[in-house]
Amino acid sequence: MNNLTKVAVAISASLLVLGSVAQADSIDPGSKFVKVDSAGAYVYKQGFMPKETVEIDLETTAMFVTDPQNDFLSEGSPAWALVGPGVVAHNVVAKEKKLKSLAKEVGMPVFYSTHMYTPHDFANWSSLNGIDKIMFDLKMFAQGTWGHEIHPELLPDDNTVVMNPHKGLSNFWSGDAAIQLRQNGIDTIVLYGMSANMCVESHARDAIENGFDVIIVADATAAAGDAAYESALTNFEFLAHEVVTTKQIIKRIEEAKQEH
Amino acid sequence: MNNLTKVAVAISASLLVLGSVAQADSIDPGSKFVKVDSAGAYVYKQGFMPKETVEIDLETTAMFVTDPQNDFLSEGSPAWALVGPGVVAHNVVAKEKKLKSLAKEVGMPVFYSTHMYTPHDFANWSSLNGIDKIMFDLKMFAQGTWGHEIHPELLPDDNTVVMNPHKGLSNFWSGDAAIQLRQNGIDTIVLYGMSANMCVESHARDAIENGFDVIIVADATAAAGDAAYESALTNFEFLAHEVVTTKQIIKRIEEAKQEH
Amino acid sequence: MNNLTKVAVAISASLLVLGSVAQADSIDPGSKFVKVDSAGAYVYKQGFMPKETVEIDLETTAMFVTDPQNDFLSEGSPAWALVGPGVVAHNVVAKEKKLKSLAKEVGMPVFYSTHMYTPHDFANWSSLNGIDKIMFDLKMFAQGTWGHEIHPELLPDDNTVVMNPHKGLSNFWSGDAAIQLRQNGIDTIVLYGMSANMCVESHARDAIENGFDVIIVADATAAAGDAAYESALTNFEFLAHEVVTTKQIIKRIEEAKQEH
Amino acid sequence: MNNLTKVAVAISASLLVLGSVAQADSIDPGSKFVKVDSAGAYVYKQGFMPKETVEIDLETTAMFVTDPQNDFLSEGSPAWALVGPGVVAHNVVAKEKKLKSLAKEVGMPVFYSTHMYTPHDFANWSSLNGIDKIMFDLKMFAQGTWGHEIHPELLPDDNTVVMNPHKGLSNFWSGDAAIQLRQNGIDTIVLYGMSANMCVESHARDAIENGFDVIIVADATAAAGDAAYESALTNFEFLAHEVVTTKQIIKRIEEAKQEH
Repeated sequence: MNNLTKVAVAISASLLVLGSVAQADSIDPGSKFVKVDSAGAYVYKQGFMPKETVEIDLETTAMFVTDPQNDFLSEGSPAWALVGPGVVAHNVVAKEKKLKSLAKEVGMPVFYSTHMYTPHDFANWSSLNGIDKIMFDLKMFAQGTWGHEIHPELLPDDNTVVMNPHKGLSNFWSGDAAIQLRQNGIDTIVLYGMSANMCVESHARDAIENGFDVIIVADATAAAGDAAYESALTNFEFLAHEVVTTKQIIKRIEEAKQEH
Repeated sequence: MNNLTKVAVAISASLLVLGSVAQADSIDPGSKFVKVDSAGAYVYKQGFMPKETVEIDLETTAMFVTDPQNDFLSEGSPAWALVGPGVVAHNVVAKEKKLKSLAKEVGMPVFYSTHMYTPHDFANWSSLNGIDKIMFDLKMFAQGTWGHEIHPELLPDDNTVVMNPHKGLSNFWSGDAAIQLRQNGIDTIVLYGMSANMCVESHARDAIENGFDVIIVADATAAAGDAAYESALTNFEFLAHEVVTTKQIIKRIEEAKQEH
Repeated sequence: MNNLTKVAVAISASLLVLGSVAQADSIDPGSKFVKVDSAGAYVYKQGFMPKETVEIDLETTAMFVTDPQNDFLSEGSPAWALVGPGVVAHNVVAKEKKLKSLAKEVGMPVFYSTHMYTPHDFANWSSLNGIDKIMFDLKMFAQGTWGHEIHPELLPDDNTVVMNPHKGLSNFWSGDAAIQLRQNGIDTIVLYGMSANMCVESHARDAIENGFDVIIVADATAAAGDAAYESALTNFEFLAHEVVTTKQIIKRIEEAKQEH
Repeated sequence: MNNLTKVAVAISASLLVLGSVAQADSIDPGSKFVKVDSAGAYVYKQGFMPKETVEIDLETTAMFVTDPQNDFLSEGSPAWALVGPGVVAHNVVAKEKKLKSLAKEVGMPVFYSTHMYTPHDFANWSSLNGIDKIMFDLKMFAQGTWGHEIHPELLPDDNTVVMNPHKGLSNFWSGDAAIQLRQNGIDTIVLYGMSANMCVESHARDAIENGFDVIIVADATAAAGDAAYESALTNFEFLAHEVVTTKQIIKRIEEAKQEH
């Protein structure tokens, strides 16, 4: 076994029990690292972090989903050994599907930020960091391949804005995220997708540098191993305007719809 | 005691012994979370992460330092309870001073990215995330105050490029980092400073989106508590072209100078 | 006479009569290139360009002023031979002063985007285009000098947001314009200042790429010669959401205030 | 006749003679506004502008082409009345084809920045400036249509990097231009395409803000009418590191190849 495989086996083993439990209810967190209080609200791990509640305005809020593609969400991806255990344990696909259908129901657009590389990129890019090296070795998100395609349960519909694909980790740098959100009248995003400490976190950081309010759905995401997921959760508390669970944001959006 | 104080006391206690040991040698890591191998190289925590060595070209490499200011590095800062323990334990000031003087010696420029808010910002900004709320509550990095000033041991000299100050977490979004680096012929940065999972990490992410090679000095930084520092270390391994310790990068730069 | 001087003399001569006439009323256009219709509205030069009227919402609109500094607006600037004739003929300083005081009166913030280079920039920047070469030869906008200072008639007050200074031609690339506007709740800017085809036009282009509505005040600006000013006017009609004269926007803002 | 048609007829008439002459030699300027000296070099219109010669390094220089698509370059485009006369008179397609084939011959990559809007954009964008209104009225660059397709004479080959499509006027804001150029080792671009005072000029401005050297090919571009083209030429002299003609840059690249 090479290193990648060894680690993957270890991660898989540690998540096996958890994973099977989690699937019992597809919108429960599915991770021992996410805790909720008696009212169902996400419990911040860092006691010094102020916690506030962002008001949901259905006119100016959108779902924002990173990398809803086979290479992160489907068995058969070359990165499945790394990300699959978390995706399964947290029921990421089921949650993304649920949030997408709720968004359509309440008239809130869903923005898709996909990841894409071309054969020319694989052959010519000259400055690869750690995560790039893994993605390039595995030829992930290759234009025109199954791995780059959107997961079959999450196909775009007339309520979905499929933005330019991004390189690196954030559409705000290599795509059209900022102008698309602004031109569509959005000032607040409900952010989730893959992977937690990479593209979700980079989109969160850049959305904030552009003046958007960011609500992160802590359990509608997963990462390459426990350490990466835990890192994301810690950083989300610093970065987000609010961290929530899937169940919690669904309730908040439904309430906003009723009051509307 | 309020929450902030309580947490700070807990953090301080846990780092006391460690801190005093670390100061015995000002360029040793000073943190139980940073490990080195027998050759003195930083040991990656994630086994699946490819590790490569970036060649140091003295003509095109620069030091890049985030927030070298009193509000992060000096006792007396309103955030000292949160960040002070790590700053002391890791000997951040001594390391920044050493790297700055080495850079001057070998003719490598040092870029300073400072953090700054104005009274108008404190009074008018309308979209504050978690970390903003803390900084705004504590009136950190206020223009014209001691807290905003650069630490007295780290004052700029004729080898320092003091860039536009940044808001948020990254000079690449609200300052002139990208154009300054390019106009000065730099394509690789040795990155460190404060705080690890916030400004250091955001600068790392944005430098990469702009095509720079990034070497992060894992122990010439600190964060608000163990969890935040650990998160940074985990993410650095994904994000950087290479993660090193202070001792390790000093040796590498000295060798590059000799071969020059 | 060198080339710069020769051209300046030619420009000065051609504007002499015009200049003296223009000063009779400090908010009249002051340029033969700006025409108004019987209702006082700016007349578009390009017949195919759709003309629309942007509604002024005092809550979300701001003045945005580029380079209100001595090196563009005061006799004594090394660039005065180039830009002075237009600045005088169009009464740019008087118009900026009038708009600034009106803004304060109606509670609309004024954003200042200043231009700045440091001695380190002058000594080290490696990629200079045409306009950079002129600015670097003349050591314009040098940090800490009179040329960099804001014109004495236009000093910031408590209604002014002095943003990070910019390099190049636009604060959206090397300063904090986008985040400052968003954090202050602004979605529409009334744009003017110096110089017409350089910094005013670059700020217009970038504001639009960021999703702001842009109203350009065609006569509260000037440029290095007639050709440069004419180019700006032509491009403004393509770029702006609306092109207006100073007199016209004053009237519109006063009406918005009364209806408020 | 509506306004658009009337203007188009006027433009067409004024360019008829010129157009037919120009086509005699497909790489001659084709415009009375572009002059060359006895050595074949582009003559700057502004005497005060310093003129320098950028050295062509075949390893780090690329062609950069904006909007090589039917809606700008082919009869049948709804905007043909506006842009067609210039495209024909300047022989833009023939020049783009010639430069593309030369680039391949000497091993210099060609970057394509295409323009694209989706039906969702047409239906939902809320902040349209002058040029947007025209493009949206005419449904230009609509994803999946003939107008969005690359001109049949200019189809990408294995030497072409087709970047993310851009919205607005510049790929540096809504696409991946900066990271693509950097990752491919490019620091200098030879810039041309459509339209002169809109996308070519915006890409020039943004390339410079990102630290690239920019050589603009003044006659391998056209615009909506004489005023727009003249504006572009004036501004190119301020913005570019060098302004050249097609014939001139071909000669320079061939010389660079021979010396190589």
